[in-house]
Amino acid sequence: MAAEPNAIVGQSGGPTCVINQSLVGVIEAVRDMGGVGTLLGAVHGVRGVIDEKFIPLDSLDGGTLERIAETPSAALGSTRDKPDAAYCEKIFRVCEKRNVRYFFYIGGNDSADTARIVNDLAKKAGYELRVVHIPKTIDNDLRTTDHCPGYGSAARFVACALMGDDRDNASIPGVKIDVIMGRHAGWLTAATALGRQDEADGPHLIYLPERPVAEDQLVADVDAVLKKHGRCVVAASEGITAPDGQAWAQKITETQERDAHGNIQLSGSGALGDYIAGLVKGKLKAKRVRADTLGYMQRSFAGFASAVDQKEARLAGRMAVQYAMADDVDGSVAFERTGNGDKYGIRCFRTDLANVARETKDLPDAFIAANGHDVTKAFIEYAMPLTGGLPKIAKLF
Amino acid sequence: MAAEPNAIVGQSGGPTCVINQSLVGVIEAVRDMGGVGTLLGAVHGVRGVIDEKFIPLDSLDGGTLERIAETPSAALGSTRDKPDAAYCEKIFRVCEKRNVRYFFYIGGNDSADTARIVNDLAKKAGYELRVVHIPKTIDNDLRTTDHCPGYGSAARFVACALMGDDRDNASIPGVKIDVIMGRHAGWLTAATALGRQDEADGPHLIYLPERPVAEDQLVADVDAVLKKHGRCVVAASEGITAPDGQAWAQKITETQERDAHGNIQLSGSGALGDYIAGLVKGKLKAKRVRADTLGYMQRSFAGFASAVDQKEARLAGRMAVQYAMADDVDGSVAFERTGNGDKYGIRCFRTDLANVARETKDLPDAFIAANGHDVTKAFIEYAMPLTGGLPKIAKLF
Repeated sequence: MAAEPNAIVGQSGGPTCVINQSLVGVIEAVRDMGGVGTLLGAVHGVRGVIDEKFIPLDSLDGGTLERIAETPSAALGSTRDKPDAAYCEKIFRVCEKRNVRYFFYIGGNDSADTARIVNDLAKKAGYELRVVHIPKTIDNDLRTTDHCPGYGSAARFVACALMGDDRDNASIPGVKIDVIMGRHAGWLTAATALGRQDEADGPHLIYLPERPVAEDQLVADVDAVLKKHGRCVVAASEGITAPDGQAWAQKITETQERDAHGNIQLSGSGALGDYIAGLVKGKLKAKRVRADTLGYMQRSFAGFASAVDQKEARLAGRMAVQYAMADDVDGSVAFERTGNGDKYGIRCFRTDLANVARETKDLPDAFIAANGHDVTKAFIEYAMPLTGGLPKIAKLF
Repeated sequence: MAAEPNAIVGQSGGPTCVINQSLVGVIEAVRDMGGVGTLLGAVHGVRGVIDEKFIPLDSLDGGTLERIAETPSAALGSTRDKPDAAYCEKIFRVCEKRNVRYFFYIGGNDSADTARIVNDLAKKAGYELRVVHIPKTIDNDLRTTDHCPGYGSAARFVACALMGDDRDNASIPGVKIDVIMGRHAGWLTAATALGRQDEADGPHLIYLPERPVAEDQLVADVDAVLKKHGRCVVAASEGITAPDGQAWAQKITETQERDAHGNIQLSGSGALGDYIAGLVKGKLKAKRVRADTLGYMQRSFAGFASAVDQKEARLAGRMAVQYAMADDVDGSVAFERTGNGDKYGIRCFRTDLANVARETKDLPDAFIAANGHDVTKAFIEYAMPLTGGLPKIAKLF
């Protein structure tokens, strides 16, 4: 009797607070399904595959699995490697060598593309390999799916950060700039609006990569809010873009490089926030201008994930196993919304890897306010259920 | 029959996540005690007193009170005003004019000093005015009390931030710098250690204002951790100090001012974190060096307060009313620990305003590791119960 086939699971790209829920979903479903020799956890994603650094995941007890599921960031380690054809060939060779017949890869659009290439190589070689991609990204920018596991928790984090920061700003008025992750799409920056209760609440201005803004316009917008409310909270995407199409962060870095401060990063840096604060302070002579860059906490903060996001990420992992092992198909796991508001729910469906690979999805026009610096009610209705609910707060004035 | 006397309550200084718990404690206890005409909420602290901007707090329903208690930051508004003798005189005159016989002031050491001066003025004038200060500060630097309301929630926030960030750093290795609030004392920076489970976990280096460090030393420390663990997470106080006694942030600002970048702030800015990251990157040629400044979220993040801190802050508000109205004494509310670990508990006691006013309390030597860049087990045992418990996470490698 031939040895039972093996399976690989790996994690890739910028981690999220629920990427380990998907990992645990895969582990549980493989165990439930049976028929797999060893489930190999690839250490640091595809890098671990080609280096053959694996952790066997078959013997973890239920308590450990639940704690892993609650742990933010990639428990198997992640990688920024973006495999080319030769790299994918190596991945495929390791699968062949180790009798791996199932390959589960949790990641974003680049990971879907890697999965697609490995899948094509297997097909060409006539080697039976089921490849399923499991979506994850706080950026929420994958195509086809209604939303991405990881986004709901990040949205919850930024919404609560801005709820608190807005109260802080109301308590001691001034101008506050908050810089939010999401280089190319405004999904996460848009979520800063979720905690607002009325028109006086911040963020008063929301700058998305999808709506370029000139420095003078931003300063004029802040001035108008200050005149109306005596204070102003700004949520700016790290991907905020000038009308010429260049990212503000890029312009600033170039300036700083000319000043021989070449050590400033585009992410993991407060430079953009400080630049915007300096601009407002300089041009408006505003008192008490502060900037925070919410940073890596948006994707990694422990103990504050969205319960809805956790559950859906677990389900995505389980469904990937279902598609590969029961249905014998390749693809990517996607969500379709079956109801919204109080009746919020999703169902999973399989989509081709090519539908998720490479290209991404911006915030649609219907979610962006006409003034270009706010979100619509439709966006709030879309995003709110994903947060699992926000804390209830109140005001005295 | 003379009209019933009135009472004032106000909030001051940098807000916390539980400062409104103390406010609600005052409101509830005044109502329970009876005998007060109107409880006047001073809008923006002492500024609201002298401008006579008050909100009556007698008619708020229980549901609203609970939501106010859960709301981060000062619901009455805060102030940075530090009253001098003439300002205190004005406060006293408003109390006289409005038949205010009880003055509750929620704040830090400066607020305690204001309370002390107003109290002295009343005594000199032979005017019956009970003044009670209610401690609050994320800095945990007030004298006499075991700990300060507000600290436990901020400690919980930074502990969970570092737990997640350490997993993020393990997932994609590099050097990560996290800058923590607390200009003069290292209490909050020390709390970044609370989520560590073993020696491989970050933060691997903790720099406190109490232990000056030279730039070269910090770089050498990071180098040693990189050689041992292949990655390094640093928690640095915003008050990190050089051996000559000057704050790093101060030195950086001076440099930047010479470069005509005069708009960089000491707080609400990523400048210090970016500077440390640049230093490490430049001197060690380390790849992937990132910095986050945890910023105002440490004191204002919504929905993540410590349950222990919430309860104690509420109690502090109630006890202030007890001291003033039942016991007919002035002072500040303080905590004494009655047990620790599983048997953690506190009791409240009254202390003289002078014991809390002006001077502050650094992290004691017993809480700082001999190497100068870590905390001791005694600190962990001191601070852990205040967080209300941390999430349970697990590792695969």
